[in-house]
Amino acid sequence: MSYLDRIRALQAWDAAAYRPFTAGGRQVGLIHRDFAPHLADFAGTLRVTEDAVALDPALTEPASRTAAMAEVLSDLRGRGLIRGWRDEPYAVRERWGAPVLFRMERAAVPLFGVEGCGVHVNGFVRDGDGMKMWIGKRALDKPTAPGKLDQIVAGGLPAGIGVMENLVKECGEEAAIPEAVARTARPVGAISYCTERAEGLRRDVLFNYDLELPGDFEPRNTDGEIAGFHLWPMERVMDVVRESDDFKFNCGAIVIDFLIRRGFIGPDHSDYVEIQRGLHRARA
Amino acid sequence: MSYLDRIRALQAWDAAAYRPFTAGGRQVGLIHRDFAPHLADFAGTLRVTEDAVALDPALTEPASRTAAMAEVLSDLRGRGLIRGWRDEPYAVRERWGAPVLFRMERAAVPLFGVEGCGVHVNGFVRDGDGMKMWIGKRALDKPTAPGKLDQIVAGGLPAGIGVMENLVKECGEEAAIPEAVARTARPVGAISYCTERAEGLRRDVLFNYDLELPGDFEPRNTDGEIAGFHLWPMERVMDVVRESDDFKFNCGAIVIDFLIRRGFIGPDHSDYVEIQRGLHRARA
Repeated sequence: MSYLDRIRALQAWDAAAYRPFTAGGRQVGLIHRDFAPHLADFAGTLRVTEDAVALDPALTEPASRTAAMAEVLSDLRGRGLIRGWRDEPYAVRERWGAPVLFRMERAAVPLFGVEGCGVHVNGFVRDGDGMKMWIGKRALDKPTAPGKLDQIVAGGLPAGIGVMENLVKECGEEAAIPEAVARTARPVGAISYCTERAEGLRRDVLFNYDLELPGDFEPRNTDGEIAGFHLWPMERVMDVVRESDDFKFNCGAIVIDFLIRRGFIGPDHSDYVEIQRGLHRARA
Repeated sequence: MSYLDRIRALQAWDAAAYRPFTAGGRQVGLIHRDFAPHLADFAGTLRVTEDAVALDPALTEPASRTAAMAEVLSDLRGRGLIRGWRDEPYAVRERWGAPVLFRMERAAVPLFGVEGCGVHVNGFVRDGDGMKMWIGKRALDKPTAPGKLDQIVAGGLPAGIGVMENLVKECGEEAAIPEAVARTARPVGAISYCTERAEGLRRDVLFNYDLELPGDFEPRNTDGEIAGFHLWPMERVMDVVRESDDFKFNCGAIVIDFLIRRGFIGPDHSDYVEIQRGLHRARA
């Protein structure tokens, strides 16, 4: 496999199979034609047509939309159509930065093709002229991608919490990184993608942070979500991202973005431009 | 104006007005419907139809394609249809990293919608906890964007020269940066765009480099292309990029990419994700 193959897997979905999911006249998601019929039973909340699924326009406030959708989702969960319930509300909006139209349970987000946001931290250590990166190995009982490799710290962004606030919280829980160190993480960009996975359509935005760690720092997981950590030279990280399926699908892309920004992959790479295009989805 | 307005101007073109330009069965450019009729006079070299403009398939080698196109371009120049002749050959290929199919004069590149490559250097100086950036002001006799603001060093990439080799050459000519310093520049990504300008369709890829300069370094132009330099605090650079038209259209985008990568613009900016999407064009 090549870096570009890894990136292309992030933008693999059949647009023709989806219809828009709208709320308040704004498109907030994409619903698969095979899932839409299940929503026809909730005519008081959702208007299902051949062209779209729309939240009832009578629901004009975020609170009433959230409450009505919660009932729908609870029913779908009871029927076994939503798995891996998290009890974690996600914000629903047209796009990052737009007003939040309502909130919905994280486990339902891919079924409705709603944009999910996350924060990923590249924890690195300088080593003479070179660099090493801390890599987390996900716990075997994680609902998604158990046992896969991950950043030192990464997590979904629940509704109502700031990106840096969430980063600090996750740094503490996942790797016992002190708050004062976590706050030195610098935002360095975001990747976005749209790809079909077992859980539905992952239409995600991941905010990337770089965090330089002292050479004597040892991460230690406190919430049971990470089974262990490796401190690898960049050459090994590069080989594993490219040649194995060991990384969680989106975490490998975060590493590739790091490799581009830090010059480990340069313009002499024939896929240099295509890789970067692939890290940012079109406006779907 | 906003950062996003600046970026959107980079992706502004009317796709319906263009037909593919092909060579060896590969699409290498896009030709405006108003320009295509001028090419019908060169039936020995170009096959002009309603759907496409194709280089004669009998031209199977880069050298013969280059020679045949050179005759066409010389004729078009004689008719006043190509202005600002540079005598600088550009590589023509399907995309960066693909085989070079032939070469053509730089001034003709936008008329044929061929991808043009360039290298742009963000020259910055650390200043306590902050940062300053060297900004070049283009000479008033430059054929494109005279008097506009630019990176400390930037230039088009002629055929047959490596990106770093070109960077070193331009660093010497444009800012008298010694080779040993220029070679410390790090590749940090590329931006790509497609936009209609007076000269035609600018379908460009710009390779971005960051170059940290010593606090006592003073750039000095040697080739007459830069009228002078400013060393500005980042806050001033940010204001000027956003609020004025002083930067050359693509140089402002290079600065915005720097602001994202270095955390001067973070996820709290409502256009954070859209700006980054806009820095990478779709595969057109």
